[in-house]
This record gives sequence, structure tokens and C-alpha cells, in this order.
Amino acid sequence: MKQNIDVVVSEVGPRDGLQSIKTIFPTEAKLEWIRVEAAAGVPKIQVGSFVPPKLLPQLADTAAVVAGVKKLKGLTVSVLVPNLKGAELGLAAGADEIGVVMSVSEAHNQSNVRRSVQESLDDFERIVAYRNEHDPERSTKISGGMATSFGCTISGKVQVSDVMRLAENLIARGAERLNVADTVGYANPKQVEDLFRELFRTIGEDIQVGAHFHDTRGLGLANVYAALAAGVREFDACLGGLGGCPYAPGATGNIVTEDLVFMLESMGLRTGIDLDGLLEAREILERHLKGEPTHGTYVTAGSPKDFIPASAA
Amino acid sequence: MKQNIDVVVSEVGPRDGLQSIKTIFPTEAKLEWIRVEAAAGVPKIQVGSFVPPKLLPQLADTAAVVAGVKKLKGLTVSVLVPNLKGAELGLAAGADEIGVVMSVSEAHNQSNVRRSVQESLDDFERIVAYRNEHDPERSTKISGGMATSFGCTISGKVQVSDVMRLAENLIARGAERLNVADTVGYANPKQVEDLFRELFRTIGEDIQVGAHFHDTRGLGLANVYAALAAGVREFDACLGGLGGCPYAPGATGNIVTEDLVFMLESMGLRTGIDLDGLLEAREILERHLKGEPTHGTYVTAGSPKDFIPASAA
Repeated sequence: MKQNIDVVVSEVGPRDGLQSIKTIFPTEAKLEWIRVEAAAGVPKIQVGSFVPPKLLPQLADTAAVVAGVKKLKGLTVSVLVPNLKGAELGLAAGADEIGVVMSVSEAHNQSNVRRSVQESLDDFERIVAYRNEHDPERSTKISGGMATSFGCTISGKVQVSDVMRLAENLIARGAERLNVADTVGYANPKQVEDLFRELFRTIGEDIQVGAHFHDTRGLGLANVYAALAAGVREFDACLGGLGGCPYAPGATGNIVTEDLVFMLESMGLRTGIDLDGLLEAREILERHLKGEPTHGTYVTAGSPKDFIPASAA
Repeated sequence: MKQNIDVVVSEVGPRDGLQSIKTIFPTEAKLEWIRVEAAAGVPKIQVGSFVPPKLLPQLADTAAVVAGVKKLKGLTVSVLVPNLKGAELGLAAGADEIGVVMSVSEAHNQSNVRRSVQESLDDFERIVAYRNEHDPERSTKISGGMATSFGCTISGKVQVSDVMRLAENLIARGAERLNVADTVGYANPKQVEDLFRELFRTIGEDIQVGAHFHDTRGLGLANVYAALAAGVREFDACLGGLGGCPYAPGATGNIVTEDLVFMLESMGLRTGIDLDGLLEAREILERHLKGEPTHGTYVTAGSPKDFIPASAA
């Protein structure tokens, strides 16, 4: 299974997908989903987040999920945390990567994690210090999440200079990776290409950079193509496009993992992921959903005639 | 309403959309749809095709539809034809543009118009000669349609050299425009960008070139972004993504007009089209559909906060 891959597709469904829908998955169902998707070759999966169970009961079993999949060969197990307390739990659970979420937009950060961006940055510094103390070999990586990098439902436009400043601040505080997110589905491909080009000019090319797009306005895969053109080589996605907004019927959530993999493989970019295996994982996902919709086109359309995925070539 | 536009969005729903679904629209419903969409600023609409009514009863009223909208100010009225007979009818009806359809793939051309590509080219030559004779001022333009330019459901891969040869042959025979179509939804954005760059190298930049994408595998708007990068400035689309395949439930047809317009306007490219006006036209469309699905995300998600379309800036 191990081979060279050109683009990392990172599944975030067990976190971003499940937190946005009503169905609460049993731990065993999450484990089955993650195992089958990992077996399909998905190299990284965000399996949950460490937030107060009161806020997100869907993800209250994140420690158990990490424990259940951390031994899977070749899989990077990632979790999301909003603060130091969450990071402590993530390290204790043994996650390979901890994504610390904060927003470029002050208003969104206040609304989402109840603190200023500066307070989130101070906390980020404490998280890195805590990791360095308790995991001196740094086997758990710290990723700086940058929500609302392309716009904010509360404050509208977000300045590119604010995105760059947050990126520099995160790196200065020890981020080993950045995750640049279009949290609310506002990004357009020109904006994406321009922003990532500016980001690589600003922070150089040594820091790992991932992109997180929502397909709210149908531009998710166009944004991926634009980000690829700018040099991004890691993308979050969600099997079946799980998620979306409970208040907007039919609205989609993250970009669809299997559609993304099809696009990349058809472009000649190896993901190391088997499309049939993804569809198998999707069946597991759908079996546990209580009537909530999934999205995506590959599941219906399948591969073109004589299609050979780059990873199989 | 008239202003400079950067990209021409060409509505093909009354032809490509309606020919792919079961509902037969009354002529009045088509006229209402087209009028409202033209009033929203759509500069070109393909209103039907001249094929035997036996084959496509949905489009049997094309001459009446052309007559009903040809006086609309600023609107280019386009029709599709498979052969000289259709072109004669199109000219008699007074269409502004006649798109002659043929396929790059021999197998697809045989299946679609029951003749070889060479026979279609010979016919194309006769069509141009007929137009030149009966319309010496050439007020009706002849567009060369190139179906299956990115792959074929019958013969699989299509060679770029075959696409280039057909393009050169069409231009040599008097095509004033080319329409490069991903008829079956096989194209990926890398392929699109590569093919259009090669096409402009081959035929130069004086010939007007349009692109026609289907969203069968979710890559439609990514393909638009790729085509824009290569220099394409005209795109076919279908309001509500009408169409798709009757044998694949949920499969989408053409790219969605309102989503395309939102993408272009958000990228700073002026289409001259008002998004609210498009949604009004979409309501008309949906009112006449008998339970057949529409697609698209903009209709649900709307514009981002503080969004200013390029055409309104």
C-alpha cells in the first residue's frame, strides 16, 4: 500500500462531518468507518475533537476513537482542539497531530472559542510548550488552524494581511503546520490562488500547509485546483460531503472525499487512495446515518471508461 | 444593461437541459423562461435545436421559440443543428448563431448523427456555403461544435491530436467560432487547461472559443477555472443544472448557470448578469418541471456577506 503520493487527502468527516449533523454515531461505527477508510489508503484522518462533551456530544468519545485507531499502519491520527485543555487530552490520547483551531476574524474567534485572537495565540504558545515538555521527541505535531481565512459570516471580508499576520504568529510560536480554512464556504478560486501564493511568499516553502474547503457554494473543487496551482499539496475532505448546515436544506459541508480523490487521480496526481475502498467506507457511513443526506457525484457517475487512476498506473 | 463584460455565459438549458429530461415544456413556458433570463442580462441563449421532431419532441417548437425571442434586445439567439437541413431551418428561423454538432470521436459521431466525422465535415462545408449564399452579410454566425473533446463513453480516451485536427478542419471550412465540449463529463481540470492551451497554440487567438462542461463528476466549475487560466472567455451553462442522465438518478447535467455566474462575479470577472434575476428565471423553470430535479448551490446558500458582484462594482 505504501507508495509515493503527490497529494495528501485528509479525511475530516469523523470530526467536521459528525459535528454538523444530528445523528450521534456509536464509537464502534466510527471505528469501522475509520478502519475501512484507512484501509482504502487514506493517509490521515481527523477522528474527533477535544471540546466539552456538553457542546459536542457527538464527539465525546474522541479519546476512545483515537485509542481504537492509533495503531493502524500508515495512518496519521489527527484531532482538533480549541485550547490547552483540549491539547492536553489530545496528547494524553496519543494523537499524531493536534490541530489548534482559531479564526483570522476577531468576531468569529470570539463567537467560536470565546476569546480574542491574541488570547488564542497566547494559548497556542502554551500548547507548544506543553507538548515540548511532555513529548520532547515531538512525535505529536502541532498544526495551527486558521479559520475564516477567506471571509467571515459575521464580519464579511477578511484581509489577506490579517491571514499573513496570523500565519507568521503561529509559526513564530512553533506551529509545525498550518491549516488554512474556508470555514464558511466564501472562497473563490482566484482568491484561493492569490492567497496561497502570498502565503508561500510570506512563510516560505518549508512549513507544511493544508487547505480546508467547504462546498457551500459549489466552488470547493475549483478552489482545490486553484490551491494546487499555488503549490498546496494537502486537502481536508469529508466522505459523502457529510455536514453542511442544519438551517440550509441541501447545503453541503466539506468537499467530498471521493470526488476530490477522483479529481486528483484523473489529473495524474497520486493520492495512494483506492476509490472502490472509499465507496465501501461510504456505505458504512450511510448505514449509520439516520436519514441525513450525503453528497457527491462520483458515487453515482463512477469512473470514465478506461480510466486508470494515477495511483494505479 | 449593456456594459463591458469579461466572460460570456451562454445559457443552454432550453436545448441541452430540456432534451435530457422527460417534461415537455409548452412553448409559452420556454418563452417566459428565456425572456426573464435575458432580462437578467444573459447575453446568449441556445433556445433549441433543429432535429427531427420524432427524435426530440421536446424541441419540436424551436422555430416558434426563435421567432418569439429574436427581437429581445442584446440577446444572441443560438440553435443547435446536426446537419444541412437543420441549418437551413435555423437560417430560415433567423437565429443569430447556428451551432453545428459533431464529435471528435468517430464512434460517438456515428452513434449521435449517424455518419463519419469526415461526412460531418463535408456537411459543415455545405452549411457554410449555404449560409454565405442566403445570408451574404453573414449576420448568422456558424459555430463548429466539437463533442467528446475530453473523452467518449464508447471509445474512452480521445487524442488531443484528433481534437486539434477537427478544430483546424472546422476553421478551414469557415467556422467563425468553436465550441469545445465535454459531452459526457469526463474532463479533469489539468486536461482542460492543457487542451485549451494547445488549441490556442494551434488555431491562434482570433477564433472565438467556447467551452461546454457537464458536472457529471463534480468537476464542472474546476474545469471552468482551468479553462479561464488557458484563456477561454465563453462558457455554456444550464439554469438549475437541468438535465443529467435519466439512467443515473442524481447525476447532474450541464454546469449550473447561477453557480457559474456567482463564481465568475466573485472572481472579479464581469458577466453582466444579475444573480437575483437568474433566481427569478429559475423559479419559472421549476414551476414547469414535473418533479424532475434541479441542482446547484447558490440557490440555497446565496451570496456571502457584503458580497459585491464584479458587474455591480
